[in-house]
Amino acid sequence: MRAVDIVIKKRDGRELTKQEIDFFVQGFALGDIPDYQATAWAMAVLLRGMTARETSDLTLAMVASGEQLDLTDVVPLAVDKHSTGGVGDKTTLVVQPVVAACGVPVGKMTGRGLGFSGGTLDKLESIPGYRVDLTTREFKQQLREVGLVLSGQSVDLVPADGKLYALRDVTGTVASIPLIASSVMSKKIAAGAQAIVLDVKVGVGAFMQTLEQAEELARLMVDIGRRAGRKVVALLADMNQPLGNAVGNALELKEAIATLGGAGPQDFRAHCLEIAGHMLRLAGKTADVAGGRAIAEAALADGTALGKFRALVVAQGGDPRYVDDPERLPQAKWVEAFLAPRAGYLAAIPADEVGYASVELGAGRAKKGDPIDRSVGIVVGHKVGDWVGVGDPLFTVHANDRERLRAAGERILAAHKFSNEKVPALPMFYGVIE
Amino acid sequence: MRAVDIVIKKRDGRELTKQEIDFFVQGFALGDIPDYQATAWAMAVLLRGMTARETSDLTLAMVASGEQLDLTDVVPLAVDKHSTGGVGDKTTLVVQPVVAACGVPVGKMTGRGLGFSGGTLDKLESIPGYRVDLTTREFKQQLREVGLVLSGQSVDLVPADGKLYALRDVTGTVASIPLIASSVMSKKIAAGAQAIVLDVKVGVGAFMQTLEQAEELARLMVDIGRRAGRKVVALLADMNQPLGNAVGNALELKEAIATLGGAGPQDFRAHCLEIAGHMLRLAGKTADVAGGRAIAEAALADGTALGKFRALVVAQGGDPRYVDDPERLPQAKWVEAFLAPRAGYLAAIPADEVGYASVELGAGRAKKGDPIDRSVGIVVGHKVGDWVGVGDPLFTVHANDRERLRAAGERILAAHKFSNEKVPALPMFYGVIE
Repeated sequence: MRAVDIVIKKRDGRELTKQEIDFFVQGFALGDIPDYQATAWAMAVLLRGMTARETSDLTLAMVASGEQLDLTDVVPLAVDKHSTGGVGDKTTLVVQPVVAACGVPVGKMTGRGLGFSGGTLDKLESIPGYRVDLTTREFKQQLREVGLVLSGQSVDLVPADGKLYALRDVTGTVASIPLIASSVMSKKIAAGAQAIVLDVKVGVGAFMQTLEQAEELARLMVDIGRRAGRKVVALLADMNQPLGNAVGNALELKEAIATLGGAGPQDFRAHCLEIAGHMLRLAGKTADVAGGRAIAEAALADGTALGKFRALVVAQGGDPRYVDDPERLPQAKWVEAFLAPRAGYLAAIPADEVGYASVELGAGRAKKGDPIDRSVGIVVGHKVGDWVGVGDPLFTVHANDRERLRAAGERILAAHKFSNEKVPALPMFYGVIE
Repeated sequence: MRAVDIVIKKRDGRELTKQEIDFFVQGFALGDIPDYQATAWAMAVLLRGMTARETSDLTLAMVASGEQLDLTDVVPLAVDKHSTGGVGDKTTLVVQPVVAACGVPVGKMTGRGLGFSGGTLDKLESIPGYRVDLTTREFKQQLREVGLVLSGQSVDLVPADGKLYALRDVTGTVASIPLIASSVMSKKIAAGAQAIVLDVKVGVGAFMQTLEQAEELARLMVDIGRRAGRKVVALLADMNQPLGNAVGNALELKEAIATLGGAGPQDFRAHCLEIAGHMLRLAGKTADVAGGRAIAEAALADGTALGKFRALVVAQGGDPRYVDDPERLPQAKWVEAFLAPRAGYLAAIPADEVGYASVELGAGRAKKGDPIDRSVGIVVGHKVGDWVGVGDPLFTVHANDRERLRAAGERILAAHKFSNEKVPALPMFYGVIE
């Protein structure tokens, strides 16, 4: 078998066999197949596509390229969630403690932010002392004892994906639905998940901009999971406006803590409860999603969810006073409200523009490894469909630099759209695929 | 400007600007743009195509990546020819001496064979002492004094093309008409050609298998030449059966010497005269192609063409006794005739099968740098359309290994097709594009 023949076969739009995919991924992971063949292949995949069967084989070949986490000795059924990334998406910080508080242990290996998608680890590191580098042994022990873990990757999961993703990023081959699907699913499977709730974002602030694309990605990931013997549900969630109000690391953590305490923005709370409901149902805790949602809601109301989060912070070495009093979290030097220049119904609060503005404030990374400022960000005060009067505060910008504050505020203000006609609220979800 | 944005633009099927193409080729040539971006780009070009304007800009960017030969101080108008490669294609060995004998000096930088396409240098090296490594100074001096040069590349022409071609070869991106056109034309332009006759082969033994593809390639190369201010004519020539009778290095050289002496196979002689006629017309020696053909024919008849070839060999250090007595050239140990298993009209003598058989005998290279055996090869005795009786000799195999001889002979025999019905002869040319 020769790598070039596999590239040519895909170039010509033909379906690769499992043997060919295994050969290519293994050779690439070992360095026998050079980067320049992998990128030509990735471009051919992007332009010619892959069948569900090929994508499933690719996913399992990726999984086989590295170590795998086995949680069967710790939990009866490992449940995980994954969001495809969005602006203001702090879902993991609420959903995992809630599900754990309902008696389903959840251990999650999570990542850092890139572009305008925030990263759970970056947000958690706003708490002094919080360790994100647990060993596999520590991870399992904490999962057993606390029932909740949020840490970075402790083992070399899916090294072929890491290597391929770095190349895709610089060769215009990120935007391939089969490559995205196999990248996401290979990491979930290698991390030991037996049941997975996928939170597929769609809209201007998401990677999938149309419902059609998001559905295609969701169906493909559900199919991969099914072929690999995993239970998978995908929710199609709106990402045209920021999720919740806060965008920025410490600001989002504060909002998550408020939500865990029973408060928080209504849309974000509802989003978390829906995902928690699906996770609890997949874990067999409740017979249906509504039942899961109900016990999750109770965990928010009775303080057990927040208590579980506090226990997590303590277990991972964080200072719990920052949970008890979130005002201790990093604060930006300047906070300024921007006011509505006119009255009207809000027709658009584009998530992408808010996301880019937060990156410009220093909250996000242009590229891997860039430093970030945890204190800065944006807090929006409205949702699409709200009516605002002239001079009403629209959003606040938290910054450590006056010039950046002004630029970010003007950018977001310019992106707001107003209407004289009533504008319907955006749906939270567009559908469920399983 | 970023390389990844150029890859993405081409991936999405958009037309690249001259600035973008210059940036990409220059960056690639200098090593600033890594191979893995170049191959992703090449795959995008193959699958999305390029306009004539883009291909022309790519060609000139390639030319600018290295040195250029300037022949204006030596010849009034530098005329060159290029064949896209075929089986038994020894055209250069006859055409260049003929044109030089007609008073038009021709200096050609030529190459080695790859796959079943023979290389002029490999054939000439059958003559002991023949030097193919002339310096630029020697090249120009000989062109001035003898009016004829056939040497390897003395300067680093189009290094970007050499580097890109090596990558295309292993990433399934050879078969792109814009990339082939720019590769051919950049080398001709960089070698100083002001007028170029392109011999575009079409058929089972050529890279372009259909007339449609060959026409597309020919039109694109003519267009590139026109945009670069060069006179270009492209002939579409048949490559379904071998050109002439001999396939193999010394065997082809012998056939070329015979043709230069006024004999040689009729089809090959006619092919050479047609190309020479176009070259003489482009050089302004004659008003039309027919006039050029006529003086070329006279040069074959009166011995001046062969005399010019002998002078070339002497000038480049070769032993002229091998020209005077070609039986001195390397001879294979065994020569065996294969006979017609049935009577009938010959319906196919597939050039590709004859070419592969000659490679298996040792006459060609599977990859660059492989050693070759100059004595081995095949001599066919017939053309498609000929009638043969049962037991008539069809072809001879020249080999230094009995087993290889048998295998090659059987392969070629099996590929011959016979018909009871009269079969028309194959055309020599399918058209002229200028």
